[in-house]
Amino acid sequence: MADLLTHSIPRSVWHGWGDPAEAHRLPDHAWAYLTERVGAGRLDHPHRPVAIENVVLPETTLAEPVRAALEAVVGTDHVRDDRAARVEHAGGKSFADLVRIRRGDGSHAPDAVVYPGTPAEVQQVLQICAEHRVAVVPFGGGTSVVGGVSALRGPFASVITLDLRRLAAMTALDPVSKVATFQAGMRGPEVEAALRPFGLTLGHYPQSHQEATIGGYVATRSAGQASTGYGRIDEIVLGARLATPEGELVVGGRSPASAAGPDLLDLVVGSEGALGVITEATLQVAAFPAAKRHGTWAFPGFDAAVDALRELAQDLGHGTIPDVCRLSDPDETEVSVTMAGPAGKALTAYLRARRVSTPALAVFVWEGADRGELRRRARRCETVLRRHGAVKLPAAVARTWERGRFSGPYLRDELLDHEVLAETLETATTWADLRTAHGAVRAALQGAFEAAGTPAVVQCHVSHVYPAGASLYFTCIARCAEDPVAQWFAAKSAASAAILASRATITHHHAIGTDHARFLGEEVGTLGLRLLAAAKATLDPRGVLNPGKLIAASDQGAEVESRG
Amino acid sequence: MADLLTHSIPRSVWHGWGDPAEAHRLPDHAWAYLTERVGAGRLDHPHRPVAIENVVLPETTLAEPVRAALEAVVGTDHVRDDRAARVEHAGGKSFADLVRIRRGDGSHAPDAVVYPGTPAEVQQVLQICAEHRVAVVPFGGGTSVVGGVSALRGPFASVITLDLRRLAAMTALDPVSKVATFQAGMRGPEVEAALRPFGLTLGHYPQSHQEATIGGYVATRSAGQASTGYGRIDEIVLGARLATPEGELVVGGRSPASAAGPDLLDLVVGSEGALGVITEATLQVAAFPAAKRHGTWAFPGFDAAVDALRELAQDLGHGTIPDVCRLSDPDETEVSVTMAGPAGKALTAYLRARRVSTPALAVFVWEGADRGELRRRARRCETVLRRHGAVKLPAAVARTWERGRFSGPYLRDELLDHEVLAETLETATTWADLRTAHGAVRAALQGAFEAAGTPAVVQCHVSHVYPAGASLYFTCIARCAEDPVAQWFAAKSAASAAILASRATITHHHAIGTDHARFLGEEVGTLGLRLLAAAKATLDPRGVLNPGKLIAASDQGAEVESRG
Repeated sequence: MADLLTHSIPRSVWHGWGDPAEAHRLPDHAWAYLTERVGAGRLDHPHRPVAIENVVLPETTLAEPVRAALEAVVGTDHVRDDRAARVEHAGGKSFADLVRIRRGDGSHAPDAVVYPGTPAEVQQVLQICAEHRVAVVPFGGGTSVVGGVSALRGPFASVITLDLRRLAAMTALDPVSKVATFQAGMRGPEVEAALRPFGLTLGHYPQSHQEATIGGYVATRSAGQASTGYGRIDEIVLGARLATPEGELVVGGRSPASAAGPDLLDLVVGSEGALGVITEATLQVAAFPAAKRHGTWAFPGFDAAVDALRELAQDLGHGTIPDVCRLSDPDETEVSVTMAGPAGKALTAYLRARRVSTPALAVFVWEGADRGELRRRARRCETVLRRHGAVKLPAAVARTWERGRFSGPYLRDELLDHEVLAETLETATTWADLRTAHGAVRAALQGAFEAAGTPAVVQCHVSHVYPAGASLYFTCIARCAEDPVAQWFAAKSAASAAILASRATITHHHAIGTDHARFLGEEVGTLGLRLLAAAKATLDPRGVLNPGKLIAASDQGAEVESRG
Repeated sequence: MADLLTHSIPRSVWHGWGDPAEAHRLPDHAWAYLTERVGAGRLDHPHRPVAIENVVLPETTLAEPVRAALEAVVGTDHVRDDRAARVEHAGGKSFADLVRIRRGDGSHAPDAVVYPGTPAEVQQVLQICAEHRVAVVPFGGGTSVVGGVSALRGPFASVITLDLRRLAAMTALDPVSKVATFQAGMRGPEVEAALRPFGLTLGHYPQSHQEATIGGYVATRSAGQASTGYGRIDEIVLGARLATPEGELVVGGRSPASAAGPDLLDLVVGSEGALGVITEATLQVAAFPAAKRHGTWAFPGFDAAVDALRELAQDLGHGTIPDVCRLSDPDETEVSVTMAGPAGKALTAYLRARRVSTPALAVFVWEGADRGELRRRARRCETVLRRHGAVKLPAAVARTWERGRFSGPYLRDELLDHEVLAETLETATTWADLRTAHGAVRAALQGAFEAAGTPAVVQCHVSHVYPAGASLYFTCIARCAEDPVAQWFAAKSAASAAILASRATITHHHAIGTDHARFLGEEVGTLGLRLLAAAKATLDPRGVLNPGKLIAASDQGAEVESRG
């Protein structure tokens, strides 16, 4: 477990997820299930990504004086426009990104990649780009699944990607207050490795943990799998430094709480590179847990499970709720159990004997200093679970989930080799609206895939719970249609409409990027969009920062142009 | 307890705190102590406030067409410019406010008081005021202690106060998600009374609970005494409606968490009437606790006590920490014990026998559904407390504190009758810096009062704790100098300089108002001020909203004027 958290892997391969050497292949019985459910099977001749030499890149348009100015700031070694650098930064890791780049479409590659070494260099790079009207795309781990790192040029002739990997130090640690400051480019395992000697942890483990960075976490309002225990990134961030073309904005860091006016830190958190470049963040850390306890439970249906999670999140209040809570709906439970092969069959038989025919499986992890206390917390929790009809299963199931928790995205690459679409989307809403939203989004996704002639497995889990509500995370698997990108976006559009009609949020932790930009107005209204545009006009008057992300081009136009 | 939370008192008397009928007088031994410590005693001829007829008010300048337009919106009964209404709205409840109004200085009174009945009426009033360039001061419970509700006109000829008392309904309740929507003018006891039939509580009990309103809580980032258990207002607010001259901003409310860009709700929270008028807020509520448990402990000094609170806030993590944590430093402990008379003497003798000579007293309250669980939480907590040398005292002391917790501000009125200054200020910082900040602010206050020839009792308590740090709340008592307002502001300036030099926040829960406006730049920097000015220019382009509050006149000038 400790190893998994600090296990550092290479930067992700350009055409897929992470380090292909870490991937596990889908077993035969999983393929058999996919064949049965969605008519997809292993191809005799898998469609592998094109060779990197065959990726079609646009001519680089970066003017020589700009390049020289950038080199003068960061050094000639740290401005790259070679094929490898440009292809690696051509997009994030959404299904659409992968389909495009695997097929050799490098149209979203930057003209050059700049690797600044200090916050001051970031600041200077931004000023150069603003002066010369070059678009700037900040890049951390590159794991955006909403288009957040595509090197779009917006109205500008050139675009650079600003890769923050050299900003990789923990610059301050206050072990008394348990507060640490990290540079933006530190990846998850590096953060944990830096804290481990002090007996500390950030406790932030999104599925992208091995690649994603501190700057990316903060820029996208990330939520880790242990959000119930350690909090979302927006709950644990205490301060940040934001480089902008107008100078550096330094917010927070004086106190865990303040009444000194509106919290400007909350303009930085979630700013997605469109208001500035986060160079450093100060975060609450926690004691590394000496003890862990796992639990696996099956509920006799999704409704009972949701009621139980709500009770845990609301009513006991004081430490009963596990630090990791992950509940699969019956669809996802069926898929997981089937993928588990013989062990899954045994589980199903056991549950049938207990008269649980459409189980909703939940895995829990309690973390803390002391085994006895975890046992007591788990016991109090079990009382609630049993009251809602849950059946206890071997804790090993939860441990297996935990061991594999960063490996899910690798499957997408194998599936794509065989022309199978696998993609996710997520939302969150109140407990009162959760079941309606779950049903509406599920139906919308199923309907859209059926309409395309490619019926899908649509599964969902709840992995972040709050007193007022919870997240919903959907995964879709279907045969690829002729245009898989269009196929996915049609399904996604239907889901987004269902999300908004349910008054749920368009994104709980994936962020806005390009994919959700047209929906932001639904969440914040016209006046909200004007506020964001005003913030952008103040910090980035020429609009060079991450064009097209967060704020749709049509919404930011007026304010920005008037200053240009 | 339940009674105290729903006990509704009249709107505060104009010349002091709350309902004078609720005040308790200081006992003789308390006066004897003050005489000994600061040379202050009961006057034979107390200086009572002037009669309301003798308050000097400026001529009302509201133009007749504006008045007519306002009356057309809210009705003639709801636009008042009589003496009683104007005097009542001439300021908040800071020491300076009280000194001025008691002496008959009504120069900060508005030209008229407008009482809108709906959010739509608020919206229309703002549009009229923007059109006619009339300043607007939103007013909830009027308990600001930082100048937040003084009816300053800024650059405008006229100013109205917008009293929100008629917006006093709970407009929505979702008992499943435990989420409720309140109109801005609801006072604390009204909120609790509305929730009680549903077995719910807001759990938000600032000392101003009986007068302060939902709108005021949200506008000032309020923190209640049970913040450890129920959270600060900024932690439990889920959505808000903000009326502005440019239209209504509606933010949040879809979900307990979202990654849909920067959280604009955090621009509304803490906006202090300078960006708009909060008409409604949606908040997380909680089960009303069926059980409570009190604890009183004495530590052998402030350092040991701070270490214990930090350990509770950080390391056990899961429910051990009490819902109310309040720790007095040795100075405050001495004052409290002395004020308690014979019971206090017995306590001191008992502690001396236990070799605790400079005790730091802490009161704790645990709240929950079940007595057994509270007992277990308290026992785990006691293990930590004892490890830091704390001695257990009768729980009755904590119960007495709780019964009297809303009555402290009444004492100020009696003290003022006898020319004694009593005022507070507060800050917060990290645990690592807490002792330095405590020492520096204490020394600054003591030095300033000594320099004025009026040595003060300076006492402090910690009442809000977080994993990363805690608040510090100082109370000063001294003989009034000839100009008590100047006397206080000299001390406050010295304290503010010490706070900023300690890298603590200029305010933890009192807000910025006028008193802290010049320090805001220290916290958010020039670019932060420009962001706030840009937000104001977007929502209030003519700058009519609460001039001089939050954003100092000098900082908001440029952006606002360019739009006017």
